[in-house]
This record gives sequence, C-alpha cells and structure tokens, in this order.
Amino acid sequence: MSSVNKTAHPFDKARLEALLSHRFFYAPAFEIYNGVAGLYDYGPAGSALQANIIAEWRKHFIIEDSMLELDTTIMTPASVFETSGHVARFADWMVKDSKTGDVLRADHLVKNVLEARLAGDKEARGEVAQPAENEKKNKKKVKKTAVRLSDELVKEYEVILAQLDNYGGLELGELCRKYDIRNPDTDNKVTEPQEFNLMFASSIGPTGKFPGYLRPETAQGHFLNFSRLLDFNNGRIPFASAQIGRSFRNEISPRAGLLRVREFTMAEIEHFVDPMDKSHSKFSGVRDTVLTLLDRHVQASGSTKVTEMSVGEAVEKGVIANETLGYFMARIHTFLLKIGTNRRRLRFRQHMSNEMAHYATDCWDAEIENSTGWTECVGCADRAAYDLTVHSKKTGHPLVVREPLDHPIVTEKEVPVFNKKLLGVKFKRDGLILQSYVEGLNEQDLFKMKEELGKGATSVTINGKTFEITSELLTIERKTFKETIREYTPNVIEPSFGLGRILYTLLEHSFWSREPDIERGVLSLPPLVAPTKVLIVPISAKKEFEPLVNEISAKLRRAGVFSRVDDSSVSIGKRYARNDELGTPYGITVDFASVKNRTVTLRERDTMDQRIATLEEVIATVTELVEGGIDWTEACRRLPAYDGVQAID
Amino acid sequence: MSSVNKTAHPFDKARLEALLSHRFFYAPAFEIYNGVAGLYDYGPAGSALQANIIAEWRKHFIIEDSMLELDTTIMTPASVFETSGHVARFADWMVKDSKTGDVLRADHLVKNVLEARLAGDKEARGEVAQPAENEKKNKKKVKKTAVRLSDELVKEYEVILAQLDNYGGLELGELCRKYDIRNPDTDNKVTEPQEFNLMFASSIGPTGKFPGYLRPETAQGHFLNFSRLLDFNNGRIPFASAQIGRSFRNEISPRAGLLRVREFTMAEIEHFVDPMDKSHSKFSGVRDTVLTLLDRHVQASGSTKVTEMSVGEAVEKGVIANETLGYFMARIHTFLLKIGTNRRRLRFRQHMSNEMAHYATDCWDAEIENSTGWTECVGCADRAAYDLTVHSKKTGHPLVVREPLDHPIVTEKEVPVFNKKLLGVKFKRDGLILQSYVEGLNEQDLFKMKEELGKGATSVTINGKTFEITSELLTIERKTFKETIREYTPNVIEPSFGLGRILYTLLEHSFWSREPDIERGVLSLPPLVAPTKVLIVPISAKKEFEPLVNEISAKLRRAGVFSRVDDSSVSIGKRYARNDELGTPYGITVDFASVKNRTVTLRERDTMDQRIATLEEVIATVTELVEGGIDWTEACRRLPAYDGVQAID
Repeated sequence: MSSVNKTAHPFDKARLEALLSHRFFYAPAFEIYNGVAGLYDYGPAGSALQANIIAEWRKHFIIEDSMLELDTTIMTPASVFETSGHVARFADWMVKDSKTGDVLRADHLVKNVLEARLAGDKEARGEVAQPAENEKKNKKKVKKTAVRLSDELVKEYEVILAQLDNYGGLELGELCRKYDIRNPDTDNKVTEPQEFNLMFASSIGPTGKFPGYLRPETAQGHFLNFSRLLDFNNGRIPFASAQIGRSFRNEISPRAGLLRVREFTMAEIEHFVDPMDKSHSKFSGVRDTVLTLLDRHVQASGSTKVTEMSVGEAVEKGVIANETLGYFMARIHTFLLKIGTNRRRLRFRQHMSNEMAHYATDCWDAEIENSTGWTECVGCADRAAYDLTVHSKKTGHPLVVREPLDHPIVTEKEVPVFNKKLLGVKFKRDGLILQSYVEGLNEQDLFKMKEELGKGATSVTINGKTFEITSELLTIERKTFKETIREYTPNVIEPSFGLGRILYTLLEHSFWSREPDIERGVLSLPPLVAPTKVLIVPISAKKEFEPLVNEISAKLRRAGVFSRVDDSSVSIGKRYARNDELGTPYGITVDFASVKNRTVTLRERDTMDQRIATLEEVIATVTELVEGGIDWTEACRRLPAYDGVQAID
Repeated sequence: MSSVNKTAHPFDKARLEALLSHRFFYAPAFEIYNGVAGLYDYGPAGSALQANIIAEWRKHFIIEDSMLELDTTIMTPASVFETSGHVARFADWMVKDSKTGDVLRADHLVKNVLEARLAGDKEARGEVAQPAENEKKNKKKVKKTAVRLSDELVKEYEVILAQLDNYGGLELGELCRKYDIRNPDTDNKVTEPQEFNLMFASSIGPTGKFPGYLRPETAQGHFLNFSRLLDFNNGRIPFASAQIGRSFRNEISPRAGLLRVREFTMAEIEHFVDPMDKSHSKFSGVRDTVLTLLDRHVQASGSTKVTEMSVGEAVEKGVIANETLGYFMARIHTFLLKIGTNRRRLRFRQHMSNEMAHYATDCWDAEIENSTGWTECVGCADRAAYDLTVHSKKTGHPLVVREPLDHPIVTEKEVPVFNKKLLGVKFKRDGLILQSYVEGLNEQDLFKMKEELGKGATSVTINGKTFEITSELLTIERKTFKETIREYTPNVIEPSFGLGRILYTLLEHSFWSREPDIERGVLSLPPLVAPTKVLIVPISAKKEFEPLVNEISAKLRRAGVFSRVDDSSVSIGKRYARNDELGTPYGITVDFASVKNRTVTLRERDTMDQRIATLEEVIATVTELVEGGIDWTEACRRLPAYDGVQAID
C-alpha cells in the first residue's frame, strides 16, 4: 500500500470551489439568467451525496429510535406564524446605501467594517504578519488598510464586536453614525436600520385575502399535529417525530455559498418529553461518548477553550441539562463522524442567554470548523413547552398529554348541595346568583356555613341583598375526589440539522490535492456517503468489453452497490482523476486480460493502490468495503497486488 | 391457508377516508387552525408509504438507467417563467359569486351544473335507476333534481361537455349567461370569468423589486442546467436527468382530497434525445410489455374503448410515436404494478391536440381509476425542443449538443483574401468598409470579381464612393471547408409523476373490509411499500418479554426490515386489527412459549394465517418475504401452521 499525505498542500478554497462547480456538486441556481443570491442547485454528484446523507440520517435517527416521520406543507397560513412569534420576531435589521439603494444586513456591516479596521490597526502596529496568499483567497472580506487606531478605540471596537448579538436597530444605527460606518463597496453612508422579516410571503387562493408564508423551519408542522402523533403512539410519551424537508429564509444579502442560503433542506426531530422526567431510556448506551464542549460559562468569561468530556459526566455535573439533551448530542456527534466530519473540527457550543431564539430555553449547537470559521450545522434546543402552549391557547385545541396516574390522588372537599327545586321557588332567578356565590366560597367559609346550617339556618348578603338559607335548601357535604389522570403539556427537545451546511463542511474536510500535483484534487468521502461507490472503467470503448461491463454493473446493482460506467474516450488516468474529484472510492478496470480470464483490477481512491482478482472476488470484496464490513487493509490481505498500477495513474 | 374474499363488501370511500384520517396516513394541514383547502400533511403511515414509493422509484428509474439526479430550487425568479410561458398561460378561469364573493373555477362550475341537469333529466325520463347508496357517498357533486329537459337541450349540453377544454373565458361567461348557470351552493349568479395565474407569487430579497414564483413543476430546473448535465455526461446524448421534489399550484378551489392539491411532491424525468433518432437502446427489454391504450383517434371518434397492445406493436404501428416514448410508458406501467396498482384499473390515454400543455407535442397520461373516475397520475410528454429553445433564445446561452460527425461534411467556397497592410495604406479607415462589403458578396459576385482580378484590377462603388482594387490588394481564393461538428437542440421526453395521486389511488385499490365485519378495514399494500413491514407483538407488556422483543427488533433492523413494536395494553386481536388498517403485512407474536423455547408465531395480514417456528427461522422467512424472494405460499411450505390462530384474531 502506498502512503498518502493528504496535507502536503495547504487547503485552497478557490480550488475546491472550482472542483465543486466543474464536477457539478452544486452551482448557482438560474445561472444562465445570471443567478439569484442564496439559491443553489445540486447536480448529480451533490444530489447523490445529499441523498446518501439523508438515507443515513433516516437510519441513524428515525429507524434506530422508531421515530414518527412526518411530511408537512411548506406553505403556511399567516395565523400560524403570528402565534409562533415568527411574524413579530423572525427578522433582521437592514440598512440601505444612501445613494445606490443597495441593501446590507446591519449587524454584518458593522462587524465586517470594524474587523477590517482592527486588522488594519494590527498591521500598522506591525503586530501580525501578512496573511499567507492562500488564506487571503479563502476570505472575501472588507478590504483593510493599515491605519493605526488609538488604544481606546481598539478597546471600544472589541467591546462592540463581542456584544453584537445584543444590539437592536436603534443601537446599530447609532454605531453607524458614531463610527462613520459606510457601505464598503461604494464608501457611501447608509440609512437608518429597518426591520426586515425573513419569511417569504405569498397569498393562498384566488381572493388575495389569505396571506401565507413559506415555513422557515419544519418544526411548526410537528407541533400542529401533536395530538394526532400522540394518538398514533397510543397516547404514550416520550416519543419523537422527524421530518426532512425544504425550508426558506429570505436572507437580506446572502454571500456565503451553501453556508447562508435562501432555500435549504433541513432534517428536524421534535422529541416530546415529560417536563418532570427528562431521563432517556437509551442513555446508558451513549454515556461514554466523549464530546468537545464549549459551555456558556466559559464563553461568558471571554474564553473559547473547549473541554473534552463524556456525556455521562457532563450530565452528572449539570454542564448538559438533562439525559435527553445529552443523548441527542451524543447521537448527533456519532452521526457527523460516521458521514466523514473531522472529529477535531467538531465542537458543541452552548448558546449564551442573549443569543437564544425566542422559543428556546437552552441550546447547544454542533459547530463545524471550515474556512469561514466555526459554523452552526446542527442546533439542539430545549424549546420547553413554548410552542404547544401558544398554539393551544390560540386555537383552543388542547395539545396535552393525559396520563393515567399509577396511584390516583384522593382528596376530600366540602361541597355545597342545593335543593334546586326549592331554590327556584324561593328565589327565582336570584337563585343562580346565590348558588354561584356559595360555590365560589373557600373551604373555610364553607365549613363555617356547614356548622351554621347544622344548627338550622344561615344567611348571606350579596350586592346588598340578603338571602335566608335553610338546611332544607342547602347542605354542605364532605365528598371524596379521586384524580386518576395527570394532564400536562410536554416539553420539546429539538435537534435541527442544516443539511446543506453539513454537506459543504464535509466537502471541505474531504478535499486535498494529490502530491506533487496541486491540480489533482481528491475528495476523500467515506464510501457510506460517496455519490458513486464504484467506477467501472473499460480500457477502451470497444464493443468486446460491453458484456463484462454489463455483467459487473448488474451484479453490483443486485448487491445494492451504486456504480457508474465511464467508457469515454479519454485515458484511464484522466478518468480516474475525474472520479477522484467526484469522491468515488473504488474503481474496477476491465481490460483485454479480463475478457480472456475474467480477472479485473480494483483501485482504491486515496492510496491509488490496485489489486487484481477474478470478477467474482472483486465484486464480493468491494461490496463488503462499501457496506463497511471490511477496510482497505483487509481487502489488500485478500486480493493480490496488481503491478501495472503506476502505468495508468 | 384461509381463503380471502376482498370484495365481499362494496368499496366505501367514507370508510376509507375515516381509516386514513384515524391512522394518520394524512390529514388536512393546519387542522387545529381549521385547515386550508388543498394542503395536506402526511403522518407517520403516509410518510413511510411515500418514502417507500420514492425509494422504489429511485431504484426503478434513476439507478436502473443511470439517470443524473438533480435537486433544484423551488423559488424561481419571474423571468424564468416569463420565458417558459407559464406567466402568460399557466392559468385557469374563475368566476365569483355575485353576492358572497366566493370564488369558483369556471370550467368546473359549468361541468358540474350541466352534468347535474343531465342526470336530473335522465331520472325524470326514468332512464336510469337511482345510484346505490354506496355510490352516492363516494361523490360530492352538485345536487340534481329530476327535471326533464328538451331533447335539443340535452344535445346542446352534451356537446358543451365534450368540448369543455376548448373554451376560454369569453365562452365560459357566455355559457353561464345563456344557460343561467349559478353558484350551486347559494343559487346566486356569477361574475364574468377572470383569468387567475396558478403560480404562487412572492418576492426575493429585501428590495421588493425582484418578483419570484414557486415552481409549478420541477422541469425548468432540469432545462436551465442542461449544459452542466451534458458536460457531466461527457458531452454524450441521450441521457436523462431526474428530480424528486415539491411543486406548487395555487388552485382556485381545490376540493378533491389528495387528487387536487396546492402543494405536492413530484418525480420528474427529462430524457434528452437526438430529434433525428428517438430509438432506445433498452427497447428490446420492454417490447413485449402489454399496455392498455386509449389513443386520440379512438377518443376523437367519441369512444373510450381501450386496446390491449404490446409496446413493440404500438411503436411499429405508430400508435406510440417512438421507441423512447414507448420505453418509458412500459417502465411506468411496470413501476405502478410493482407498487400495487390494480392492472385492470390502469390505462394510458393519449392527449387530444386541444388539451395538450403549451409546451408539448405529444402526451400519454397513465390514468388510474378510482372512486372519482379516471385520474391522470403520470404524464409522459414529448416536449420536443420547446424549453431549451426558448431559454437559449432569451439568455443567449446555447443549450445545444455539439457532436463530432462520423463523416465530416466537406465544402468548397470562394474566399476574399486582402493584403491588410496595403489596404490600410491605400484606403485608411474606408478599408474596413470595403473589406466588409466584399466579404458580404455572394459566391457568384465573388467569382466574377475573381475573373476581373485575374485580368489585373476591378472596382466597386459603395455609397457613391468608388474603390479601385488591384490583384495586389485582393485575391479571391477557392478554399476547402470541413464541418466536423453537428450542433443541435435535443428533444425532451418527460415522464412526470404526481406522487400524491399515485399514493391515494393505491390506497383505494388496497382497501377492503374483512368479511363479515365491515368495520374491520384492511389495506393490502405490498410489502415493498407497506409503511411497516413487521409488527412485533408481545402478548402483554410484561418485563419478561422485553429481551426477546429487543432481540427480534435488532435482528430485523440488521436485515434491513423495518418493524415496530406494539406492546400497548389492548388485546392482541385489536392490535392486529389496527395494523391491518396500517397495511402491515406480517406480525410476529411473542408469548410465554417464546420465552421458554424461542418459538414465535408469524401472521400474514390478508389471510390471517399463522405459522409457528423458532425465532431464527421466522426472521429468515419474513426477511425473504419482505424482499420479495418468496411468497406466502412458500412461507407456509417452510413453516408449520399454528393452531391457536382463531383465538387471537
């Protein structure tokens, strides 16, 4: 086996982006119409990668934990998001260029300009070296100039940047004026910040009177169906619903590729749990999983120092609030590693209280490091009872669990019992006033009244009118009550996955250039998610190879292994190079020897090792490789090396 | 094995709908907000059924034919749909109730009212019996009254109904006035028809100046990416792209459950093919598939008599236009049968020329019969070069195939060759005018000029100015040209699947009631698509069954068989009845004997047969059953019958 140095060349974002575009992982949507910011189309490679990630997600989460899958609508009547709080609060602040009218997101503008000034200051002080050529290419930021700032100003800027998430429109406007923050593209001043709601608006039906929004998350579809889901689960709790689907956010000025888009595929789980008991029956299975944690206390102290800690310890120490939250964080961790995320570039960061969404009470983000920094890719929030409560209140439809109590709660109470007939005869309509008054009395007053009635009669005065009450008209009786049902609104733990972000960071983590040729990009995607598992390469497009190629195709298909044939006219080396860029982990070459004696070679992408064996042996081995039963070392033990390797690569 | 009579009870739509709602296959979206017409949420059963249909679709079409999968955006800038013709033509005519303002789709109103009058007429003539109670329940139509019409009027109505698709707004308005067609719900007159575009409109970004629409089909996403797809396919044609995704149509007044909705999941294939050669390399594999055809000539003659014909014969006779269209029709046919569609209730109907979409040149619909009649579930259209041509023209981006010619086309031409230096010296800027004039001359004129130059000199007059030309300045030479590339816009064959319609008709075809109890509904979904494959039923929720139940769950999961456990407290019979409604084909019962000697029983849904064997034998058998390797008869041969059957059902 050859040894592989995947870090021989430093990561180069521009090269990766060129590869992703050229091999059509994804591309700007409506490209021939000059594109629309924040909208991307996935091509065959990207679609297959996404489909494989989704298939594994379904297996890892839905099937493993018998979750209830949902598929709810994107188009949503406005009333739903009025209740959920999104109409009022799901917004960003925008400013306009005072001359061109270009729209900018206010907090991003402040951040980019101040960061550029701080960087310029550092340069002027000679504190930091120029960034390497490579780093420069990876960041498209505001141009900095080497201007030295006063020490006080540096301090002010740093405080502002640390608190940016706390500022509203007024404060952001003030900052722009105070520090003369302008549109860096034009150097024009900007207008006062205005609020812009991030939901796409539309209108349902032909009347124009029924406003709707495209959902910004799939979650509301789960909450609104809670009663049906509970019923499907035979009335029992805890259970989780899950949904994979498209959501939309009308971003003000998206510029970060797949990391900030206007339309995206999410996978969301809503785990409904008893607020009094957030333990998890399968917690023991994840107790020893070690996570990289950055909790809110560390952040509050101004540090980003992470801690490695087992989930069991974190829950015991109260770093992670409860077992259910811990269970899902461990499961998210395992899932991300399984699909190929770099363990050292994955951390869980707890939200500070000021950055929490309006519905959340606690939240940990799985953040994945990439060329733009640490990016939130999975949120794991405790939404408490917020959503079910507001929808229930608004619609009058109870979204609650009714659970039989193991031990009924028995209570005794004094209860007034009227002789209804006599009440009507004696007081006519006023009888109801009297009855309602007496029924509203507290235990103590009722007890006093009981004593008096025991002596024959009593009287009460209501709004100046006195009622004489005899023991014939009213008795106060001690009755026993048995509560057999406990009714409560469940809490919701929500792991929410941004699949596009996961996919993009995975591509960054997988990308390297073959030594010594920096032009030869490779995507080392795990076979589990690689778009194509096996490339079948006849040495030429000659007719005589067709039967063997078809046989291999059919056999791999029957084994559930997705393959493609490349019989294009370029050299085998070029065809393999193309498929290294596509992340295809294995290649089977068919040549004249294959036709003669049914041997084929098997090539591994990262090492470029080639082995040789009969068609049947190679198919059996590659099937096990793709299913994860064996690794390449084991495959090499089984299949002899092929000598012609270097010749064709 | 018991015998099963699935048609003992006539089909009852109300019962099916109650079952689908109760078992949460799907339900009106936003139900607790009183719902929105035409929007439905799929619950766990419906989602799983849909996911299984999609997984099979992916295997049957994408993987089998190495299609290029895409995932493009729903949000689309208006310019795209202006070009495609959807902004101008993707509309229906609506009328409003003159008093309530209720909106009705004009053609549906005319159809419903005239059909009701004709039915009333027949009743008055005593021509037809009253519809059976059951039929009545299955149709929610306009109330008819037994009023006899004149023979002429009956004829007029019949002609109108036959030509309904031909009428525009003016004609529909005239019909409403002439025949006093009113809103049947209120008996009020209706307004003049207005056109209503069926696309949901929105606005992209914060400026409000960038209109967008939600796509009404996924197709445009394929066409706009054509060049990238062709490149991905190494420049070769034919190839197909495929996409599964959400689309939207803002229907005027949707009232037909899943058959007419405002948001739906489609699966679309765009097969790009040489317009000169629509043969298909795999046609021989489908040649003998027999389809039920209703071609346009039969319909034009006023008949709906279908013909059974092999695809091979249909293409030979020109009933189906070409092999590629025939190939896809056969593949659609096989797919629909595989997932459980009733063969006798499936036909392919060719569009009449007046009902074709604006982009299609030929179209066959796979129609599936259900309680509302025959419903289009898959369209198979030849869109010719329409879409690629209009987008190419609009954007200036060529959407063409450039193919090397096997035999280059060689031509000879007279070509003017100037001495550029001399031209500048002699005529300065006017030289360019002269050059462009001469290059624009036709073959004949050039030949004449050549003769004159052969004699030494010539002259031309351009805009009154005369240029003297010597043979030093200009020679006319005969040159050979070789065309090696053929450039053309491919045609598109488009199979387009409405997954919700397929899913709903499949549910109708699968539904029956167990004899003698009409309340005991069963969904006989094939194991391939059934939401859950195996139900695991411990005889009670006692702790001692847990290890066995977990072992069976884990083993089935490892075998890739999706199972659920039902340990709720109701009787085993009730639990099986519930799962018959969910379409779960197999049940494994765990009882005290299981704990003692590891035997479990296996129950088949339709026959209610039960067999008994060891846990290992039952898991092996049920895995083969689910994978389609064996059928129940074979399973019965392998596993002995269990005697306690009747007791628990």
